[in-house]
Amino acid sequence: MVKVKLVGATGYGGVGLIELMMRHPEIEIGSLIAATETGKPISAFWPHLQGICDEMVHAADDPEADVDVDVVVYSTPDGIGMQLAPAEVANGRKVLDYSGDFRFNSTELYEDYATRLGIPVQHKAPGLLNDSVYGLVELHREEIAAASVVGNPGCYAVACIIGLAPAAAAGLVEADTIICDCKTGISGGGKKPKQGFHYPEAYDSSYSYRLTGHQHVMEVERELSVLAGSDIQLTFTPQVVPMTRGIIACLYGKLPRGVDQKKVLAAYREFYAEKPFVRVMDTPAATGHVRGSNFVNVTVACDERTGTLRIISHIDNLVKGQAGSAMQNLNIMFGFDEMTGLNFPGAHP
Amino acid sequence: MVKVKLVGATGYGGVGLIELMMRHPEIEIGSLIAATETGKPISAFWPHLQGICDEMVHAADDPEADVDVDVVVYSTPDGIGMQLAPAEVANGRKVLDYSGDFRFNSTELYEDYATRLGIPVQHKAPGLLNDSVYGLVELHREEIAAASVVGNPGCYAVACIIGLAPAAAAGLVEADTIICDCKTGISGGGKKPKQGFHYPEAYDSSYSYRLTGHQHVMEVERELSVLAGSDIQLTFTPQVVPMTRGIIACLYGKLPRGVDQKKVLAAYREFYAEKPFVRVMDTPAATGHVRGSNFVNVTVACDERTGTLRIISHIDNLVKGQAGSAMQNLNIMFGFDEMTGLNFPGAHP
Amino acid sequence: MVKVKLVGATGYGGVGLIELMMRHPEIEIGSLIAATETGKPISAFWPHLQGICDEMVHAADDPEADVDVDVVVYSTPDGIGMQLAPAEVANGRKVLDYSGDFRFNSTELYEDYATRLGIPVQHKAPGLLNDSVYGLVELHREEIAAASVVGNPGCYAVACIIGLAPAAAAGLVEADTIICDCKTGISGGGKKPKQGFHYPEAYDSSYSYRLTGHQHVMEVERELSVLAGSDIQLTFTPQVVPMTRGIIACLYGKLPRGVDQKKVLAAYREFYAEKPFVRVMDTPAATGHVRGSNFVNVTVACDERTGTLRIISHIDNLVKGQAGSAMQNLNIMFGFDEMTGLNFPGAHP
Amino acid sequence: MVKVKLVGATGYGGVGLIELMMRHPEIEIGSLIAATETGKPISAFWPHLQGICDEMVHAADDPEADVDVDVVVYSTPDGIGMQLAPAEVANGRKVLDYSGDFRFNSTELYEDYATRLGIPVQHKAPGLLNDSVYGLVELHREEIAAASVVGNPGCYAVACIIGLAPAAAAGLVEADTIICDCKTGISGGGKKPKQGFHYPEAYDSSYSYRLTGHQHVMEVERELSVLAGSDIQLTFTPQVVPMTRGIIACLYGKLPRGVDQKKVLAAYREFYAEKPFVRVMDTPAATGHVRGSNFVNVTVACDERTGTLRIISHIDNLVKGQAGSAMQNLNIMFGFDEMTGLNFPGAHP
Repeated sequence: MVKVKLVGATGYGGVGLIELMMRHPEIEIGSLIAATETGKPISAFWPHLQGICDEMVHAADDPEADVDVDVVVYSTPDGIGMQLAPAEVANGRKVLDYSGDFRFNSTELYEDYATRLGIPVQHKAPGLLNDSVYGLVELHREEIAAASVVGNPGCYAVACIIGLAPAAAAGLVEADTIICDCKTGISGGGKKPKQGFHYPEAYDSSYSYRLTGHQHVMEVERELSVLAGSDIQLTFTPQVVPMTRGIIACLYGKLPRGVDQKKVLAAYREFYAEKPFVRVMDTPAATGHVRGSNFVNVTVACDERTGTLRIISHIDNLVKGQAGSAMQNLNIMFGFDEMTGLNFPGAHP
Repeated sequence: MVKVKLVGATGYGGVGLIELMMRHPEIEIGSLIAATETGKPISAFWPHLQGICDEMVHAADDPEADVDVDVVVYSTPDGIGMQLAPAEVANGRKVLDYSGDFRFNSTELYEDYATRLGIPVQHKAPGLLNDSVYGLVELHREEIAAASVVGNPGCYAVACIIGLAPAAAAGLVEADTIICDCKTGISGGGKKPKQGFHYPEAYDSSYSYRLTGHQHVMEVERELSVLAGSDIQLTFTPQVVPMTRGIIACLYGKLPRGVDQKKVLAAYREFYAEKPFVRVMDTPAATGHVRGSNFVNVTVACDERTGTLRIISHIDNLVKGQAGSAMQNLNIMFGFDEMTGLNFPGAHP
Repeated sequence: MVKVKLVGATGYGGVGLIELMMRHPEIEIGSLIAATETGKPISAFWPHLQGICDEMVHAADDPEADVDVDVVVYSTPDGIGMQLAPAEVANGRKVLDYSGDFRFNSTELYEDYATRLGIPVQHKAPGLLNDSVYGLVELHREEIAAASVVGNPGCYAVACIIGLAPAAAAGLVEADTIICDCKTGISGGGKKPKQGFHYPEAYDSSYSYRLTGHQHVMEVERELSVLAGSDIQLTFTPQVVPMTRGIIACLYGKLPRGVDQKKVLAAYREFYAEKPFVRVMDTPAATGHVRGSNFVNVTVACDERTGTLRIISHIDNLVKGQAGSAMQNLNIMFGFDEMTGLNFPGAHP
Repeated sequence: MVKVKLVGATGYGGVGLIELMMRHPEIEIGSLIAATETGKPISAFWPHLQGICDEMVHAADDPEADVDVDVVVYSTPDGIGMQLAPAEVANGRKVLDYSGDFRFNSTELYEDYATRLGIPVQHKAPGLLNDSVYGLVELHREEIAAASVVGNPGCYAVACIIGLAPAAAAGLVEADTIICDCKTGISGGGKKPKQGFHYPEAYDSSYSYRLTGHQHVMEVERELSVLAGSDIQLTFTPQVVPMTRGIIACLYGKLPRGVDQKKVLAAYREFYAEKPFVRVMDTPAATGHVRGSNFVNVTVACDERTGTLRIISHIDNLVKGQAGSAMQNLNIMFGFDEMTGLNFPGAHP
């Protein structure tokens, strides 16, 4: 059994991985670490786990947390993983980080990212950074398999990159015309209560936010640029709609001359032929169809009348957008089939 | 007092106008007509009206419904208004229709529209059609004031046209690049239960539909083309998100060389300076801010990095998108100030 | 025009009264006071008011707030009104308070209440307290008309008292068997974000809380005891269900021998014959039927098989449960018809 | 592997069991039967299953559906199972039925039930009926293990019986004082769209219905009467709150003299000591804590001030209230541990 030390166990990203580990035949909890709620079982904070998972939550420096593990997962905000990872790697452990700490494998790119967020620009573990791998299995399976340090992708980024990668790779979109109109459920903001996520404020209302400079844009642009072989900049509109789980990303761009729906659809089907979590279709889908699961529904619906590439990408932001991608990465990092412990649908309705 | 015969009184569009008439100092119910639920007070069907509005609902051919009225409002599906309007107009009454029956003032345009919907292409009242006016007060106040027959606009169309009109009129967007990414609340589908609107199916899920040929596109293209003085075709993506009221429309296009956020914002402010229901801003808004009211929030948020016009338009689909626009039209048709009976906010939260 | 100084203008209780004052022909805003968000228009905090109500929000000690008003309304937590009211009353102003400060017209009762809440037991304005009146118009219209200081009732208390008053008054329930099973929407907790009201935590879940000693119980017991002429103690179970507005209170007790559904229904109809906001019926209702309005739907549905009085009471917790009752009190305090500015339905859906 | 023929595969009860069978190591789909949507994979109707479960849906008389199975599960309305079961049992198959067809093991009791529902009172398979067992494992484990025909309990009944059984069995409640105030999520009404479940009608509203004679009452009264050794009749108030999954049942009755919270809590803990799905506690819980799982949270919170037994029972109506209980029954019927394939939490949030 692969043992996991999970740092940040009490957040949505942490509890999501706990739920997945309980289903996984080969990966299990080594220890649970958090900044608060320590000294109690995780089920005292998340009562749905009562009697099913009652593991203790430890402080990071609690000696009892120092069990023998194979991998450390940081389900923590920016800046935590890069501080703690070097010691773990030195101890022979692999590292998977949910934040932006290891999504950009050069100090220059990280500096750009940190600047955009207004956080300190100097990376704390540049050595690990250079060797780190972007953890989107659909694009980087081989590197992830060989990596010590993997940066789990952002939720919006997963939806956008999977939705646009085939078009970028095959030149099916004019590079300077890409628009990502993204709607997320409220759990994307984490467990911490805020005014905009207060039930009476959030219900029956949809809104946009951070209309310039959302931090996930950079991942999307970097990955697509690599695939396209040219520099891509895109327009990104994050929005919140009154649901808990799900991202629906409508992705647009000009079709190059001679490219039509049929050609795009064929290219998408080929690109994802061996990617078991991506379902390519040419009919409308719903975030409800991927809710609670690691699947991505990609609808190819170009508008030939206006010559527009249109892709609609659907994920569960907490699964494929977070803990599910993490588990998929762990599967690859430890040599399991990527669907192990993840080949299930959500519960409907 | 202006008296209204309301045909289709029991639908969401009908009950919305009833609620508004109860607040209006100069416009009142003459008679209520419906195809079902007749012979009972409207409050038997919509119990929130009990003791406040207990008007009887009549069948169309019920003699008791034949009261002396000044205007007939058809809150009915396509095809009803055009059949019944000629006799009313002949009787000296004005007509306001919620459907597509009088949104296109030529039989050729109507034929296109009907073809798109798969309904009979021959208009039943071509004489009235040619004299009819498109009922968006922000664009057609003068014609509406003089009109006998007004076609109330579609809900998506209101959000898109108001969001794009200043750009189209002033050449602030390249005409062949426009994308309308529109998210509606579920009440847009009317009161009739359907699988996709069944609570357990609709909650916590967002989805797209009718990815080609939504019937509202044609109105948007027609109005923008007139403003731009050139033929505009656009890409339109209707989506349903789990809320009851509201449309958030993200509207995109290429900025022509030399056009930036500042210039666009100024143009929008000028265009809507005398339009009391349109609030132009350069910060994110929410559909919750217009919920229950006739206001439109228009956020101008161009992405200068990519040279993209970006406008986010927010309405309540049942008010400015339907009954509120209807009342605004009635105000203009009968010489009242356009805000009469409409100058109120929704109830928050 | 009656002018109101509203203290606590930015909370749900405050904004609710602002919305109602904008509809009222005789009562208007004098000044808006709050502890935070001062120095800006109220519409900067509540954007749905933009362009409709842009009154400035002042700090309590701001000289600009010191306008000539007829009444001061405290939409504030326990302990504020009693501190500030004496000076206002000395200035000839009437006072209406939303908290528990003036719901109990003796220092002994207040002490009990404060003990239950764990707040200081000594009332700060005992002189006013003794003259204060409990502001439920359906029971205390005459006293309210004559009062200088009125305590607006708690939301649960409104639902329970109106639901049980006729039974208590006419001996239609055995006094020691009363159970109040109450379900509230989340806005009852106010505008402040908390873990249990965080959208992802609150959606699709119902829960009970404070299973002993909810502060509203005391009001209910006091009012019912007075009506019954004997001491009543009852079991009260507050619950939160995932909606924003509404309370549905199921009220139970043993029917005395010889009392049946018919007799109860008749007694309720008689009791509320002259109370225009109370709708008595013998069929199921919904909180949606009173949402956004000051009406109360009272379903009388005794279970004769088991000899049980069963009353189901429905209110909008923010209207009849708070700002609407406040306006109804103001109407009575200033000699207007009690329905003035309140005789409207909510917007459906 | 135990093979299941599932009749009624496309309803919520059917798809719930499909999801559970996909997790179960020893029980699997034999064939899927439905009245509509036949001739297509189940994933064509429920797209979340696409690529995970693409079994064909057959008509009942389709020869391809006639595979060798060990048990037939009827997830069908009243009246279907009793018609089809005899032939299956004659073929050596066990039967589990979701409806009321086999919840009452005598024709007299069935007649009462059918009368209450207004359906034909004559049972179609009285021989099987007399041998059938009520499928609540917590009360009837031994009989279920030996049974050929099991009647899966109603969702409300599960919540009420589990919540009241220890009190009834130990005489901790006065038998003629029991009140069940039950709130269900909307999925309890099944997948079929109806006016009251239409999203715009159902959101932000709570309502009661069928205030006399809900069909589940009879199961509750029968089971409790057997436990109490005397005839129990109770008051039952079904309500719908705007959530998809969950039942919160508040259960009340008079405490006999000398019975207090401590004694009740101890009795409940003892009663459920060996029942792994029942969590007894003395603090408030939430339906969200059992959402997506087969667990029952039972809060014991007597009100000693008024001498009232108060139990709050929480289930997921689609799991413990339907498909989960079905799977628990199958586990017992085929000799597996009752938690096999069911020992997991729901996904939070």
